[in-house]
Amino acid sequence: MSRRGLIGTAGVGVLAAGAGVLAGRASSPAAGAADSATVPFRAAHQAGIVTPAQDRLHFAAFDVHTESRDELVALLKTWTAMAERMTSGREAVHDGATGAGAYTPPTDTGEALDLTPARLTLTIGFGPSLFTTATGADRFGLSARKPRSLADLPKFTGDALDPARSGGDIAIQACADDPQVAVHAIRNLARAGFGVVSVRWSQLGFGRTSSTSTSQATPRNLLGFKDGTRNIKAEDHDAVSKFVWVGDNDDKAWMAGGSYLVTRRIRMLIEPWDRTTLHEQERVIGRAKGSGAPLGGKDEFEELDLQSSGPSGPLIDTDAHVRLASREELGGIEILRRGYNFTDGSDGFGHLDAGLFFIAYCRDPLAQFVPMQEKLARNDALNEYIKHVGSAVFAVPPGLGTDDDYWGSGLFAP
Amino acid sequence: MSRRGLIGTAGVGVLAAGAGVLAGRASSPAAGAADSATVPFRAAHQAGIVTPAQDRLHFAAFDVHTESRDELVALLKTWTAMAERMTSGREAVHDGATGAGAYTPPTDTGEALDLTPARLTLTIGFGPSLFTTATGADRFGLSARKPRSLADLPKFTGDALDPARSGGDIAIQACADDPQVAVHAIRNLARAGFGVVSVRWSQLGFGRTSSTSTSQATPRNLLGFKDGTRNIKAEDHDAVSKFVWVGDNDDKAWMAGGSYLVTRRIRMLIEPWDRTTLHEQERVIGRAKGSGAPLGGKDEFEELDLQSSGPSGPLIDTDAHVRLASREELGGIEILRRGYNFTDGSDGFGHLDAGLFFIAYCRDPLAQFVPMQEKLARNDALNEYIKHVGSAVFAVPPGLGTDDDYWGSGLFAP
Repeated sequence: MSRRGLIGTAGVGVLAAGAGVLAGRASSPAAGAADSATVPFRAAHQAGIVTPAQDRLHFAAFDVHTESRDELVALLKTWTAMAERMTSGREAVHDGATGAGAYTPPTDTGEALDLTPARLTLTIGFGPSLFTTATGADRFGLSARKPRSLADLPKFTGDALDPARSGGDIAIQACADDPQVAVHAIRNLARAGFGVVSVRWSQLGFGRTSSTSTSQATPRNLLGFKDGTRNIKAEDHDAVSKFVWVGDNDDKAWMAGGSYLVTRRIRMLIEPWDRTTLHEQERVIGRAKGSGAPLGGKDEFEELDLQSSGPSGPLIDTDAHVRLASREELGGIEILRRGYNFTDGSDGFGHLDAGLFFIAYCRDPLAQFVPMQEKLARNDALNEYIKHVGSAVFAVPPGLGTDDDYWGSGLFAP
Repeated sequence: MSRRGLIGTAGVGVLAAGAGVLAGRASSPAAGAADSATVPFRAAHQAGIVTPAQDRLHFAAFDVHTESRDELVALLKTWTAMAERMTSGREAVHDGATGAGAYTPPTDTGEALDLTPARLTLTIGFGPSLFTTATGADRFGLSARKPRSLADLPKFTGDALDPARSGGDIAIQACADDPQVAVHAIRNLARAGFGVVSVRWSQLGFGRTSSTSTSQATPRNLLGFKDGTRNIKAEDHDAVSKFVWVGDNDDKAWMAGGSYLVTRRIRMLIEPWDRTTLHEQERVIGRAKGSGAPLGGKDEFEELDLQSSGPSGPLIDTDAHVRLASREELGGIEILRRGYNFTDGSDGFGHLDAGLFFIAYCRDPLAQFVPMQEKLARNDALNEYIKHVGSAVFAVPPGLGTDDDYWGSGLFAP
């Protein structure tokens, strides 16, 4: 089946976008110069996971309103075509901003017209609620395909989750080196979904807090500490295939080569933290603030010394964040972190609404994220300075191969 | 009086920061390489006004809680020293993140440690409420120095202002090419003000919507249109001195060489706009969406043709935004715009909370911004798609000369 054929099945409400896609794939003139900043859209795995982390994030979780499987599939096909165009620096729809005719609404909103691709990646995931309702009813004939690992996360100690900032049937993660490019992408996808889906919550982020490649320096989070020193790096193929990609025989076949995405909106209690001594901050984290070296060490990338004692107890405290999150204490567990700092203004009490939008990709959240977070939620010394206020989990299917593949084609295959 | 002496008068609550400033002015190692991306802090006018607009904004408005003039002046001196350091790419306080001693809170929060200056500018302004209370009472012995032009803005037709996002005694505009640098600056200034001031509201922005230099291409706002084509450019010295800088004999002497800052948080009703035809969008704005040319023209920088008619009325509609905002229709008035796009997630109804954080600098808001906005508020065709939800005005003093000058030294001079 050709892409043309697939797009041709697009339902009402997305036809305008679909029609535009059919019209052609020529680059807009403005995008021509920036090919070097393009991340390929089709590959064995979705982009935006082990892609060296871009500087900016716009993440959106959607509720699905339609009860029609066909309408949902049609939207996913339209989204795929739009996403492929936008990640290559083109308009969401060919000539969408100005060329579709003066007496129809433009099919691209236009604010990215003169911008480069900015390494835009768009990554889709499906939440547990897309498969079954809260009472367990099948929604789109998908319940038999729900992976065991795609379970709602348990309530962790200290969780202060806002339901309006949690969950979602579908997630799209847009990452780019230019925020306007990421915002444009989410906006145009949301727009094409009008009547079928709506945005449940969204989050902007900046200053990636975890490097995902050895080519990147470790950035700092809003606690002022380097974050992601021990993160899995894209170049470590063994760790990536062990901890990130779902194996061929792990679970449902449609998820082989995919991953699971966990998001946590972690508000940092900036003001109490800022009034804490350097010594206490370093004890809580378990690393030196300046160099990022583990306490007792000199170099950022030294192994953690979890055994030795200093003058007043263990070099790295028993409740230190790096100890509890370490593979040494977690029976070898690792996850790929890809979070972003956020600052959403102030909270009405004059406090900065700021923190870390935590994003992790893992092969099985039940075996990786959940035990890690249970340990952290109970004992992490950092808990005094953070609050988890949003949470979600999504199944992220593998990448798209041929032109026939679309976002969810494995899941929705007959 | 030396800077050392001035800082020495810093009040309680900011002493930690003040002390750090005294310790020295050596560059942090991380900042060494990025001098080329530094905007000078001391000059005849404050930076951040005609400085070619940076890509990111963090704007904060503060309420002053102290009743002590000395305490306020001490904070302004401390802020000045911190701002001068940060704009040159250094920590807010010398060795503040890691060097102040393990058993005191760090005097710099650390998240900008490894980043470049990123052309950071910090611009201060004073609101009407700093001078007199709502009932007209003098607050800090400043009422005789309140300029006539620093008046609360009138209520404009259609205003839907949220008081919590309006006004403020003091404003600090942080602009930088890296959002983490701008956020770090505001956070550390807010922190140094603990007990004396608190953040009333703040706003992050990206993708500057108005170029302020002929060296910059015209960026697009979230309506998808080029914004700022006819903006005053820094290189047009005649226009800048006529419309931006307060003259020597305009009003109070302490404002000579300064400017007035008007902010308007303009929410865009993105979804209705996106459902509008291209023809209607271009009629509303008065320009072509693709090229930015005025309707009837071909080139972005062509003069507006406000006289000619097309097949169905004036080429540029009588209510078109560009017509009503044009100097031709406003008796020659111009303002310097320096706004930013914003996207603050969604609004709880699934709609994008996005728009334009409008920033204008002008020599006299009563003679420039007010008549312009009165005209726009009454008749602008764009009003159907926007809503003004926040508003503020501030007197922005001239730049600092010698080391004795501090933010507000002219205003608070005996």
